[in-house]
Amino acid sequence: MVGFNGPLFAIVCARNRYRPMKTRDKILLASLELFNERGERNVTTNHISAFLEISPGNLYYHFRNKSDIIYQIFLEYEKLVDYYLQTPQDRPLTLNDMMFYLESVFDGLWSYRFFHRDLEFLLDSDERLRRDYREFTNRCLVAMDRIFAGLAAGGVFASQPAEFRAAMSLNVWLVVTNWMAFLKTAHGDQSDTCLSLVKLKQGIYQVLTMEMPYVSEAYRDTVLALREKYRPDLPDDTSA
Amino acid sequence: MVGFNGPLFAIVCARNRYRPMKTRDKILLASLELFNERGERNVTTNHISAFLEISPGNLYYHFRNKSDIIYQIFLEYEKLVDYYLQTPQDRPLTLNDMMFYLESVFDGLWSYRFFHRDLEFLLDSDERLRRDYREFTNRCLVAMDRIFAGLAAGGVFASQPAEFRAAMSLNVWLVVTNWMAFLKTAHGDQSDTCLSLVKLKQGIYQVLTMEMPYVSEAYRDTVLALREKYRPDLPDDTSA
Repeated sequence: MVGFNGPLFAIVCARNRYRPMKTRDKILLASLELFNERGERNVTTNHISAFLEISPGNLYYHFRNKSDIIYQIFLEYEKLVDYYLQTPQDRPLTLNDMMFYLESVFDGLWSYRFFHRDLEFLLDSDERLRRDYREFTNRCLVAMDRIFAGLAAGGVFASQPAEFRAAMSLNVWLVVTNWMAFLKTAHGDQSDTCLSLVKLKQGIYQVLTMEMPYVSEAYRDTVLALREKYRPDLPDDTSA
Repeated sequence: MVGFNGPLFAIVCARNRYRPMKTRDKILLASLELFNERGERNVTTNHISAFLEISPGNLYYHFRNKSDIIYQIFLEYEKLVDYYLQTPQDRPLTLNDMMFYLESVFDGLWSYRFFHRDLEFLLDSDERLRRDYREFTNRCLVAMDRIFAGLAAGGVFASQPAEFRAAMSLNVWLVVTNWMAFLKTAHGDQSDTCLSLVKLKQGIYQVLTMEMPYVSEAYRDTVLALREKYRPDLPDDTSA
């Protein structure tokens, strides 16, 4: 589920179902794959064009520079997450919905993992990206708040005062967006080699831990059992 | 409460109460101040020696390179946090203790803010720092777990199963260590100019939100009132 097989690929394919893939899209896909695998800082536009066996001039015909490529990848990421976080208008949300949201969000984090790995640096280097990311975050927080409200309407969660729900959404956001950095800094051996989609999705255990007190009595045991499936395999050397 | 007036200064002063400050300590203090103010990446050893009006040779007599300075600053930070997170052996913990822990942790984050701002990059560049930071994180998690247990013993929190308490400690860690990045990326105008100790401490609101369901009935209103004092002044443009 990474690079050429990931969600970006699905989007691009849907867009071009009956046409061969355009060079522009190939560049975006190759860049995403290289950024994820090697780290964005270690990949130049020359690496990207070499990887695709196209001339640097061809690449520059489509993108002004690497920042431009990163920004276009962000736009695809944003589209994907906005799509994932939609809520149905015609029915309350179910526990299945909640698990789908969580799985999807972590799938997205994985597919675009280079982005969150070096977020502050990327935002520092591109004013346009900084502005858009700010709006994206706020949109996600509103969507998460709407999801929590939908889950309360569906009886999965107990109802909460609006301001409390908003602060909770923000906590979920903080846990989700920090989980990858935690894996890397706090118990990664060294590089990203130890990062995997499975480990990343263990962040769902942390989110469910946070949500537990709000889960309705009727769903408690089911959520606890679901949560078990994501239990992190943290190292044992946590003794002081 | 920053740089020369911060906790590092207090430690250095305590160490050298009857002596003039040593050049080595001056270099550490100046570096911390410059890293915090300008960002670590924008500060060279030449900037540091110019700031102190000493020769680059004098600086290199004390430190091999900038990484070495960063590592020594980390050791001071670590010492400070370990000191803050101690628990008394002879009594259970009180609500005042809890607030002291929260205030102290955010004071520490503020005084050494450059460090968390560029953590992954710093850890990538120094194997020794990476190893020590990993141990530091695990030590903090154990300490937080001990604090939660102490607060349960003191009746402030309801008692929780050990594995749940550990997952909760980790969530608190994820929220605390991600709060500064959130301020910067999600509603900072642009640079760090908008970051302040007051804004940083609004992260306490988020931590107390997470802890609320575990607070004993007798303490609920008091904690809610304390929490109000830290309510973040987030921008209103959070509409989708």
